[in-house]
Amino acid sequence: MGLQVVRFEKENKQQWGVVSNDQILVLKNTYSTLADFLESGVEEARRVKAQGTSESVSLDEVTILSPVTKPARIVCQGANYSSHREEAGLEAARPPYNMIFSKADSSLSGAYSEIIRPSHVQLLDYEIELGLVIGTEISGAVKVTDENIHEYVAGLVIFNDVSARDVQLSEGQWLKGKSYRTFGPTGPFLYLLDKEDTALIHDLDLKCWVNDELRQSANTNQLIYKPAETLTELSETMDLSKGDLIITGTTGGVALTLTPEILGNISSPALAYEKKLDLLVESQINNGKYLKDGDVIRCQIKSSDGSIDLGEQINKVVASKVAVS
Amino acid sequence: MGLQVVRFEKENKQQWGVVSNDQILVLKNTYSTLADFLESGVEEARRVKAQGTSESVSLDEVTILSPVTKPARIVCQGANYSSHREEAGLEAARPPYNMIFSKADSSLSGAYSEIIRPSHVQLLDYEIELGLVIGTEISGAVKVTDENIHEYVAGLVIFNDVSARDVQLSEGQWLKGKSYRTFGPTGPFLYLLDKEDTALIHDLDLKCWVNDELRQSANTNQLIYKPAETLTELSETMDLSKGDLIITGTTGGVALTLTPEILGNISSPALAYEKKLDLLVESQINNGKYLKDGDVIRCQIKSSDGSIDLGEQINKVVASKVAVS
Repeated sequence: MGLQVVRFEKENKQQWGVVSNDQILVLKNTYSTLADFLESGVEEARRVKAQGTSESVSLDEVTILSPVTKPARIVCQGANYSSHREEAGLEAARPPYNMIFSKADSSLSGAYSEIIRPSHVQLLDYEIELGLVIGTEISGAVKVTDENIHEYVAGLVIFNDVSARDVQLSEGQWLKGKSYRTFGPTGPFLYLLDKEDTALIHDLDLKCWVNDELRQSANTNQLIYKPAETLTELSETMDLSKGDLIITGTTGGVALTLTPEILGNISSPALAYEKKLDLLVESQINNGKYLKDGDVIRCQIKSSDGSIDLGEQINKVVASKVAVS
Repeated sequence: MGLQVVRFEKENKQQWGVVSNDQILVLKNTYSTLADFLESGVEEARRVKAQGTSESVSLDEVTILSPVTKPARIVCQGANYSSHREEAGLEAARPPYNMIFSKADSSLSGAYSEIIRPSHVQLLDYEIELGLVIGTEISGAVKVTDENIHEYVAGLVIFNDVSARDVQLSEGQWLKGKSYRTFGPTGPFLYLLDKEDTALIHDLDLKCWVNDELRQSANTNQLIYKPAETLTELSETMDLSKGDLIITGTTGGVALTLTPEILGNISSPALAYEKKLDLLVESQINNGKYLKDGDVIRCQIKSSDGSIDLGEQINKVVASKVAVS
């Protein structure tokens, strides 16, 4: 049975701890990055969980931080649930390739942090996703399977792949529209994966609410490209390191809703950028689902048997106080 | 006047040095990453250049390594020269947005390393680009200008943004097709930028030959989104750190040649992936410009007055010995 680990700040000190009910059992050692924690802190976390510790603190007395720390590669799968493919104007069926893109690590933010909407962004969207935290150096092709995945994945997190659809889809390449600071609430818990847990990676319920309305609800058994095959493919392409994050794509229920016709138009190089943007905004802005300043997004991921629980994110949208060029 | 710095390996030891004619003046201290070198090594490099050093070694006795080291963010500009926009089927004029994507840092390789063609890649292309090495932590919006750019950019490198067009363009998001290991020859020299050099950023000649045929020839005065405005925009979006790399886009003359019609078809979500791939390969494979195993690519960047010289890359294409899934 795995552990729920948190990274937190109290009195300007950043520490790690193990969650036990509403308490954090505080680790004595400090680890400045997730890679450091995974290298040297896991054993301490297991010991503290088994034997207790002299110091504990209530979860609500601290500021919970993202367990994933900079620098980290954030490698993302796109359009990886049929329900999201359909609402985005794509064919629902498994596509012949695993769509891969990336997100800047400065998007990482805490599970209770504010999501700052840049002033030029009109189509702000949410995307609950299962995040896989890499636990080892991958520098060549490896064959990852459901049996050995715990050797490559150290833990699981909730990730909200917040997206500025107007930037993302009118510009074509997705990095910029998904990378603004605070666009990646992560955590609250890093669930350290045990060998016994690996089957449950395929049975995690994802739920996302906006202002207490359930918007996204799915199970990771619906993932099209599965974690093991995805890691195998990524290993054939690029290096990954301890503490990097793979996010596995979102499910249906986001604000974005495109018909194949509109998707075709906004994907066409023949249509001028300004017209694409107008078409996109006009087709979306009044659907009542995009995030407004003050909205609160709540995300949960847990196994249907309850044995794995990644916690709950609660993030409020606020307007940026800074205008960008 | 700036310095030409190299990172190299000799007898299994990785070191840094300053280039002086055909010799490397070897730095006594070692720096495991580019960030370390920029933090602590620049002063030593300037001293060694001014005062000499007890140890020097011939450039051809060592293995030249990429001066940019992992981990590093590689942030890329796309379609940023009119001549390349036209050959790619786009309008030549400045577009209303600066296209940004990223490349995995495991693509980084040396200026004389082999470029390994994955066995499934049929449309292997070259892209000479000016690379800007970030010299400071950028964690919020800053206004970068031609006058202060040396405060943000520590140096310049040649970068070959090697691209598997069949993967890149049939899948839509560009990360994967540009990220295979060895797809990023970097260097040979890191040219440390002085305040006096900054005007010359706009007057660098780029030249790329394949098997001694000149394929790309341009000047950075043709860059559409200029380095300073690009850094200003990036700072508004994401964090950058010392040792990160911004690549500024390639110019006309690559193997890829698309008509607007073909670009439209391969961009259309209505066309099945297999048909896109067929259309793309059929339109490209016989144009005589794509890289074949054994081809040699040579890239140079220098200012037209000769005062800035980033050296010359020479990279041979070889077939991968490993088949990927």
